[in-house]
Amino acid sequence: MKINNFLITLSLMAIVGISNAQQNIFGGPQIQSPVINADKTVSFSIKAPKAVQVYINGDFLPLTQVETPFGLMDGQKPALMEEKDGVWTFTSSPLDSELYSYTFEVDGMRMTDPSNICLQRDGMSYTGTFIIKGDSAMAPGSLYSTCEVPHGTVSKVWYESPTLGLQRRMTVYTPNGYEGGKKRYPVLYLLHGAGGDENSWTDLGRAAQILDNLIALGKAKEMIVVMTNGNPTEQAAADQWPEGKGKVIDAGQSDVLQKSVASIEESFPDVIDFVESHYRTLKGRRNRAIAGLSMGGGHSFGISKRYYDQFDYVGLFSPAIFLAGNRPEQLDAAKVLAETEVDKELKRQFAQRPKLYFLAIGRSDFLYDSDMKFRKILDDLELPYQYLETDGGHTWRNWRHYLSVFVPQLFR
Amino acid sequence: MKINNFLITLSLMAIVGISNAQQNIFGGPQIQSPVINADKTVSFSIKAPKAVQVYINGDFLPLTQVETPFGLMDGQKPALMEEKDGVWTFTSSPLDSELYSYTFEVDGMRMTDPSNICLQRDGMSYTGTFIIKGDSAMAPGSLYSTCEVPHGTVSKVWYESPTLGLQRRMTVYTPNGYEGGKKRYPVLYLLHGAGGDENSWTDLGRAAQILDNLIALGKAKEMIVVMTNGNPTEQAAADQWPEGKGKVIDAGQSDVLQKSVASIEESFPDVIDFVESHYRTLKGRRNRAIAGLSMGGGHSFGISKRYYDQFDYVGLFSPAIFLAGNRPEQLDAAKVLAETEVDKELKRQFAQRPKLYFLAIGRSDFLYDSDMKFRKILDDLELPYQYLETDGGHTWRNWRHYLSVFVPQLFR
Repeated sequence: MKINNFLITLSLMAIVGISNAQQNIFGGPQIQSPVINADKTVSFSIKAPKAVQVYINGDFLPLTQVETPFGLMDGQKPALMEEKDGVWTFTSSPLDSELYSYTFEVDGMRMTDPSNICLQRDGMSYTGTFIIKGDSAMAPGSLYSTCEVPHGTVSKVWYESPTLGLQRRMTVYTPNGYEGGKKRYPVLYLLHGAGGDENSWTDLGRAAQILDNLIALGKAKEMIVVMTNGNPTEQAAADQWPEGKGKVIDAGQSDVLQKSVASIEESFPDVIDFVESHYRTLKGRRNRAIAGLSMGGGHSFGISKRYYDQFDYVGLFSPAIFLAGNRPEQLDAAKVLAETEVDKELKRQFAQRPKLYFLAIGRSDFLYDSDMKFRKILDDLELPYQYLETDGGHTWRNWRHYLSVFVPQLFR
Repeated sequence: MKINNFLITLSLMAIVGISNAQQNIFGGPQIQSPVINADKTVSFSIKAPKAVQVYINGDFLPLTQVETPFGLMDGQKPALMEEKDGVWTFTSSPLDSELYSYTFEVDGMRMTDPSNICLQRDGMSYTGTFIIKGDSAMAPGSLYSTCEVPHGTVSKVWYESPTLGLQRRMTVYTPNGYEGGKKRYPVLYLLHGAGGDENSWTDLGRAAQILDNLIALGKAKEMIVVMTNGNPTEQAAADQWPEGKGKVIDAGQSDVLQKSVASIEESFPDVIDFVESHYRTLKGRRNRAIAGLSMGGGHSFGISKRYYDQFDYVGLFSPAIFLAGNRPEQLDAAKVLAETEVDKELKRQFAQRPKLYFLAIGRSDFLYDSDMKFRKILDDLELPYQYLETDGGHTWRNWRHYLSVFVPQLFR
């Protein structure tokens, strides 16, 4: 027991830092938050003895209409927490199997739950997360969890992009058994949205867990997944390389696309060249898929169209597609077909008979109308594609789901 | 410009989440914090309009004596922040080149800086970080930064430990050029302390940056670095696999060491077997180093002694060494030599003439007296070792420095 006490004390010292020892953190019960109760309700707590009002904001709360630059949209209504003895608490209604995220708002100040170490970064801010597992292995919460199955490796790898004139970081998932093996694998290129980076699909998208679990369940083929950074002026995620921070989202700067020497579409062969020369890949279009969300959906649309004979599988998740100078929400199908070569380009691509062209969107996504216009173009051209429409909006909850539906169809 | 505005808006939406749109985050200037000023002072800001008192606590603040379970020790004295228009600010004195960490304390509530995405987790809590680069590439802040040099790969890899009966996660650094190459490399096994996990050395210890930069400067050999999880009941870091959370630090549970079927020392051959069968390694003691901090220093002491002919390089950074039933701070050299076989075991190890046995400790480390008693044992036995004594205590600031001194001496 002495050894254990010593370890506990050392842990506590490591945790609070000696510099905080004067705060009497060594004594007294620690707050546990969140606590998932037996009835699938979830209890949240935060100690804020001097606060006047504390709210919780999370994607498990009821929807309400909120003002956005895109007009009225669905958003969550923050819930007031109850105070007792300086500890504020809130208990949710029973929740479905899912990965959820939330923040606290203490006297108008947004903050993460100090008792929850499961944080995820989305762009420039963090939220706390928790998972409600499901009754089956295919329930969303189970599929997004680290489970007792064989695990692939997640690597942060740097590559040269001669086209962009930068060394850049990517995230690579290799399936269990890759290290020390000889087998070759097909490759899914998986692209993030605006505000994201090469960490987004593994951190927010749970791509490694989804792949591990689908492969273990026999529902997906083993594959390599390559998750690049889709901001052409960025070398790596801003928390990895702070000097790169703000290049994309600083509104005071000039056009980000003008600042890069080439576009993501133009530079994408650099990625494929690196992956196929540094990993044990199966080559050729039959063994290549590309998919992305929002801006990355637009990239996947553009890259698969530009390199029209290179990808047999294309996934567009809530894609932001720029055509004929349109912002996606202003997309005008007639204008596009009149003013661009998109019809010819798409026909050229589809003449190669890609095995899967997949489009998914949520009914309350602000890109819904835009994607419906894009869909009309596909329909007018009589091009075959798979369409998935779900509830919900422009959220990781949908993109995780779309990935889970897309991946089992690959490389069959 | 339209495209850029769209990207910015999308980014902001991703950042704040639609669910927070009602907070009017789309308008108004964002707070920048921390800001490193030209004179190497650093300005911190946080918006907390309803707060009564706001402090900042960080490892760059002056030391003060604080009460701890180990008696009076050096700690940082939190600094009061100044309020103007709801924004609280503090500007430090000019700071030396280093990686620093800090938190805010708003009305007694500890929180990270909401404007800083560079967070690091130490055990169960987060701090914000920033780096003051130096004038030379060898200045600590430069050495710990992601620089324009060739980068190695950092991978999260799962392996089977038959001895512990668990699949477990490790972090593996492979030097630039490993992927797709044929060269074989020596291996440094690098172990964390209590409260840590397989992420600690890359996240808090900046091991990948240190290796990248030392290799690029010609000051270190290329090597593979294997960073394991030193908690024998844990399969992976608690934020990766929350079900594992609290197994080690929950004071209500019985002895953690009793709960695992084997010790880290006993199970360590599983790690070496996996690494040497799955990576292109150079074999044999000349190509193996082991080092660790605190508990991991104790593990490195124990593993290198137990497998006495397997490691030519041993690094003990502020080691917590358990001998003769002593807690480290009670270590009694005479009792140890009287009651254990440590003298015989160490003589057996040193009879193999390890090329480097390295011991480093800070003068205000709470393990200083203990490590001096251990040092006396080495001296009494007339065993050759390298000793480094620094300012400061049981901190990552010291451990990053010790790694930077240790690594250049390996595999020469």
